[in-house]
Amino acid sequence: MAHAAQNESNSYERTHFTSELQKLQTGTEVRVAGWIEDFRDIGKLGFIILRDVTGLVQAVLVGENLQKAKSIPRQSNILLKGVLQGTKSKNFPFEIKVEEVFVFSPASLSLPVDPTGRVESNLDTRLDSRALDLRNPKISNIFIIRSNVLKLIRDFFLENKFIEVNTPKIIGSASEGGSNLFSFDYFKRKGFLAQSPQLYKEQLVLALDRVYEIAPFFRAENSHTLRHLNEFLSVDLEAAYLDYYEIMSIVEELIKKILMHLRDSNNIESENSLIRGNALNDLISNPFPKISYEKCLDELNRLGEKVTFGDDLSDSSLKKLGEKYDKFYFIVDWPLSLKPFYIHEKESHPTLSKSFDLQFGYLELVSGGTRQHDVSKLKSRLVEQGLSPESFRDHLRVFEWGMPPHSGCGLGFDRLMMVLLGLSNIREAVLYPRDTSRISP
Amino acid sequence: MAHAAQNESNSYERTHFTSELQKLQTGTEVRVAGWIEDFRDIGKLGFIILRDVTGLVQAVLVGENLQKAKSIPRQSNILLKGVLQGTKSKNFPFEIKVEEVFVFSPASLSLPVDPTGRVESNLDTRLDSRALDLRNPKISNIFIIRSNVLKLIRDFFLENKFIEVNTPKIIGSASEGGSNLFSFDYFKRKGFLAQSPQLYKEQLVLALDRVYEIAPFFRAENSHTLRHLNEFLSVDLEAAYLDYYEIMSIVEELIKKILMHLRDSNNIESENSLIRGNALNDLISNPFPKISYEKCLDELNRLGEKVTFGDDLSDSSLKKLGEKYDKFYFIVDWPLSLKPFYIHEKESHPTLSKSFDLQFGYLELVSGGTRQHDVSKLKSRLVEQGLSPESFRDHLRVFEWGMPPHSGCGLGFDRLMMVLLGLSNIREAVLYPRDTSRISP
Repeated sequence: MAHAAQNESNSYERTHFTSELQKLQTGTEVRVAGWIEDFRDIGKLGFIILRDVTGLVQAVLVGENLQKAKSIPRQSNILLKGVLQGTKSKNFPFEIKVEEVFVFSPASLSLPVDPTGRVESNLDTRLDSRALDLRNPKISNIFIIRSNVLKLIRDFFLENKFIEVNTPKIIGSASEGGSNLFSFDYFKRKGFLAQSPQLYKEQLVLALDRVYEIAPFFRAENSHTLRHLNEFLSVDLEAAYLDYYEIMSIVEELIKKILMHLRDSNNIESENSLIRGNALNDLISNPFPKISYEKCLDELNRLGEKVTFGDDLSDSSLKKLGEKYDKFYFIVDWPLSLKPFYIHEKESHPTLSKSFDLQFGYLELVSGGTRQHDVSKLKSRLVEQGLSPESFRDHLRVFEWGMPPHSGCGLGFDRLMMVLLGLSNIREAVLYPRDTSRISP
Repeated sequence: MAHAAQNESNSYERTHFTSELQKLQTGTEVRVAGWIEDFRDIGKLGFIILRDVTGLVQAVLVGENLQKAKSIPRQSNILLKGVLQGTKSKNFPFEIKVEEVFVFSPASLSLPVDPTGRVESNLDTRLDSRALDLRNPKISNIFIIRSNVLKLIRDFFLENKFIEVNTPKIIGSASEGGSNLFSFDYFKRKGFLAQSPQLYKEQLVLALDRVYEIAPFFRAENSHTLRHLNEFLSVDLEAAYLDYYEIMSIVEELIKKILMHLRDSNNIESENSLIRGNALNDLISNPFPKISYEKCLDELNRLGEKVTFGDDLSDSSLKKLGEKYDKFYFIVDWPLSLKPFYIHEKESHPTLSKSFDLQFGYLELVSGGTRQHDVSKLKSRLVEQGLSPESFRDHLRVFEWGMPPHSGCGLGFDRLMMVLLGLSNIREAVLYPRDTSRISP
């Protein structure tokens, strides 16, 4: 530990994580701390298998320490002081000869879920006891990977000259349509929880050129599915002077960097066979297909779906597309009428828009496009969509201050993790998911 | 630009940021984009000073391009295509001989604030037009530094084996007292906006050992000061097996890393003379003083303040302390009665607690401590503070699953930026601040 107590002595000072022991020599004195995964008593000797966040270690006990260990419930939190020695065990390259056992916290004898994962529990029970559920390394690994992928994304943005921004989560008007916003009393006014940083990130390219944000956003939608949550982590970017094809290149490069990271990390075992082994290498080395909305319609009608221009793609249609394009692919050039007011029309085909979604099979992961930066066109589009330019006054005036052309996108991070790790429910990728029926713990 | 359009040609393809031009040779063809900071017409020649997020460049125009330039309002967003050449200007090492001027967005002739900073506006006017205010490089620089400091903090945590977590911002009970929480309807139940990740980060050390989060939190306090906001960015950490002295070491090391970064970044001009020049070097090389609460009382009473044991330190007291200790210092070992239920008592003096605040002058920046991990003591402390253990049921049960001893702290990031950059109002450090009277833009 780098930080020794300078004042009162810290009785629980651990010297090493279990994963750090293999670098040490036999005979080294160590203090490791963690949870009793298992205890075996074979008479004169006893063995504790101790788990910490980095792995497992075996410890051997005799005499008084063995007697003490017999009375400690499994999954209790303890510190073992001892010396590294060789072992006859087939499962461990070395063991700790215990000199002292210190119990920090005894565990209850009846635990709501089995943290070793031997006894399976259903997801609801696990989420009710999430902290204990995370003791299972298969589960904690999801969140260690999540943390690493977030770092990778931020580094990628900084390399590409994006500035990290923090936009407000409390907003004063239910601007983007607004039916899906949580609302509350904000000092005698009405406040809303932001659903996305869309308007703010567009405003910020006025001066900061390229911005990104990774932050929680909120959607009051009353539906319960395996791929939606009411609070979610969104990765948003916006960039001046780039168009939607350039944003797609950025997104594709980013996703491939993440895939390479997954491939090169030994501790990753994606259960998603689509992004494992050779399939993973193929994904990394080939461009993601780009399919126009109109081509999607042709294919879907050939497959018996009745879809006409201007229809949104239903779950059923997306499932059919997802069978053919079962990995990452872009759907580009959506009808303008299906897209929000801030999306730019295609000059060559004004009923189409400069827009894209990145899909994985039937799941939408990213939505983006070139933005309209001509304020008079923005106003017409608002009116077309039944929205009032007056309620967007604060936003529209920014476009009269020399707004550069710009493009951007938003990526649903929890859903991306779900896809990357082959999880069948988005709740598996979130520590404390929020849905219509779950608001605690 | 790394990402060329693959489909329709992108008419606004910039080749370089202005700061990248100095690496190029005379004669290179470039396309730069930005805002017209200034235009001078001297007859047969004209000069545009173009600003982008990285700096300024001078461009010289003749003939048709000069005629066109005369009609473009200042602060309009344009692209200049041209060739690098030498210059007679004293202010620029080279200039762009313009071949083509492309106007993306004309700026309005009457701007609400002057983005060159020559005409000053009051803060409210600036915040009402924040996007334009940010065109002033003195202002945008605050947020570029903010972005860099966030990266530094995250890298520091990862080096120290902290896992990034995302805890929920929507919570189901107004647990920590709760009078300061925004509340709203959440699918026929009551939901609240989290004020801190305190309970969640403690729960997560049960399995993840060391966690950190940088996220927005919310406080419904109806007060209007220069140092509080109702939405703020908090840096939170929690670590198993560390005590509060070790957390103070981590905090001090982190703050010093940030100070070194400020010192070594050429573009930083802190207006805070306390952390500039020699004062900055002194701060980096000397330990932050640690003063006990009881010693603070002695000093304050000597200075004429009437404070007795158990009193919180009033604004007036903190201002007096801040005159003597005018930079970073810790106040340690606060009375247990002043601290939340989750703070650990000092075994040697049970009326005191294992707690600390990091101050800068009279401003509190960080609050932290060793946590109570004994569930029966936690329950007594709740009752002592008039809170109901039953309403903390979800939280308390985690302590029966083998909870390690742990410590942590929370740092108010906006306030830290305020101190580091010598800003007199926290609103200067936040893009779109939220207070009792401001919820837009």
